Amino acid sequence: MNDTIFEIVPIGNELLIGKTLNTNAQWLAKRITDLGGFVRRCTSVRDDLNEIRSVMNEAIKRRANWIITCGGLGSTFDDLTLQGVASAFSRPLVLNMRAVSLMKRKYFDLKETSIAKNEKITSHRLKMAMLPIGSKPLLNPVGMAPGVYIKSNQVDIICLPGVPSEMQALFDKHVVPLIRLAIGKRYFYDTSLTVTAIVESELAPLLDLVMRDNPHVYIKSHPKGAEGSSRIELHLTTSAERRQIAENSIEKAVNEISQFIIKSGGKAESTQN
Amino acid sequence: MNDTIFEIVPIGNELLIGKTLNTNAQWLAKRITDLGGFVRRCTSVRDDLNEIRSVMNEAIKRRANWIITCGGLGSTFDDLTLQGVASAFSRPLVLNMRAVSLMKRKYFDLKETSIAKNEKITSHRLKMAMLPIGSKPLLNPVGMAPGVYIKSNQVDIICLPGVPSEMQALFDKHVVPLIRLAIGKRYFYDTSLTVTAIVESELAPLLDLVMRDNPHVYIKSHPKGAEGSSRIELHLTTSAERRQIAENSIEKAVNEISQFIIKSGGKAESTQN
Repeated sequence: MNDTIFEIVPIGNELLIGKTLNTNAQWLAKRITDLGGFVRRCTSVRDDLNEIRSVMNEAIKRRANWIITCGGLGSTFDDLTLQGVASAFSRPLVLNMRAVSLMKRKYFDLKETSIAKNEKITSHRLKMAMLPIGSKPLLNPVGMAPGVYIKSNQVDIICLPGVPSEMQALFDKHVVPLIRLAIGKRYFYDTSLTVTAIVESELAPLLDLVMRDNPHVYIKSHPKGAEGSSRIELHLTTSAERRQIAENSIEKAVNEISQFIIKSGGKAESTQN
Repeated sequence: MNDTIFEIVPIGNELLIGKTLNTNAQWLAKRITDLGGFVRRCTSVRDDLNEIRSVMNEAIKRRANWIITCGGLGSTFDDLTLQGVASAFSRPLVLNMRAVSLMKRKYFDLKETSIAKNEKITSHRLKMAMLPIGSKPLLNPVGMAPGVYIKSNQVDIICLPGVPSEMQALFDKHVVPLIRLAIGKRYFYDTSLTVTAIVESELAPLLDLVMRDNPHVYIKSHPKGAEGSSRIELHLTTSAERRQIAENSIEKAVNEISQFIIKSGGKAESTQN
């Protein structure tokens, strides 16, 4: 269906003790899907150097095209993302002068708002400018820690901060253009269909047929309401180079399903997403 | 800190296109942590047989003690969890008579509430009772699809439904006792400390020292508020066999941190969780 495979790697203990709900993962998955990318996996790992290195190496072995991490870019001792990336890609951390200058610019912005009057860019802070060699730093429009872009032979890596407002601003400003450039413009389109008065056992083989007839459309069924009430939501998704093509594919599949359901005495209704 | 390693494996395309926020992962991570387990990873995968099989095999290679899946237990064609588990563990799917009887019981309950008057346990529905050989089905207190427990030589596997109310009821009723039995009673304890008027660069080496002195306490720092405002939340976590031991460990670490911070002219305040 789509050749550009993304893996999302949220990093942080708070996710794995259940302290924090992983809204970043959903936000990123939706954005990437809307851009026409295929998100294959989302793997949350702890602030642990071995784990971060392993998850990178595994994603490379699975031939991911893009790895998007979020979290662990800050200045404290347990922010280990860039060390993990450096180690997985054998690219030692070096002081990136472009990152230093982005941080200085940010620092003076903050100083003007008088929040950071008594603060210096300490050597500790400079940890955030120690990037794997060959990285391109991405200005963080909200906070201090720059994002990181690394293009290796095997994979494109983006490292984003974990604070949602910073992550989102950085992604929209810097990452969207990179992804668009890499995979071309693609449109994601989805719609939902609520089916009633038909038993699931009759529906399943039909959906198989419709998917075979419409190889670019993916259909997922979600039984709704109490068991046995025969209310099923079908969610149809596709992506294409042009919006019209995506819409037409979905429309064709919806028509095929609807006709079959009416023939079987059931009811199919479009649902607003 | 803890030897019982859990991996959570949420299964469903809806998670990877960003349609659904993964509240199940947070709920499970918190519950397992509170029981004293160590959640190492959470890997969301698609409704794809190869992916489900791979993620299982990888977790085994990483020597997970428990794998908890959620989602993909229903009766429709894209519910592939048990096929994936069957394939990863070379345990063919067979009709489990205990599962059939649990489903029948559930079915008659539903019939009494008159929701399912016109429904039969169709052969299609029986798919939910096709379990990997040697599985123990777990009654779903809310919906129809039973949960599944498989004890293999390498790992304990629990498969839960994806509907949150079903997943939670099933976990609390059947899985909590299994985990308690396996890892013994352990208490998880955490607290937060808000630190102000101290720079992060002074804090980092202290936290290293405190963690070395308190090997069972894990401390994570979260810078809060705008960059440069020097407001840092410290989150301390531990688990122990007795509640008092866990509380004492945290208290000792908190005292060490507080004393250092006051000496450095900073302020430390307990935060309600």
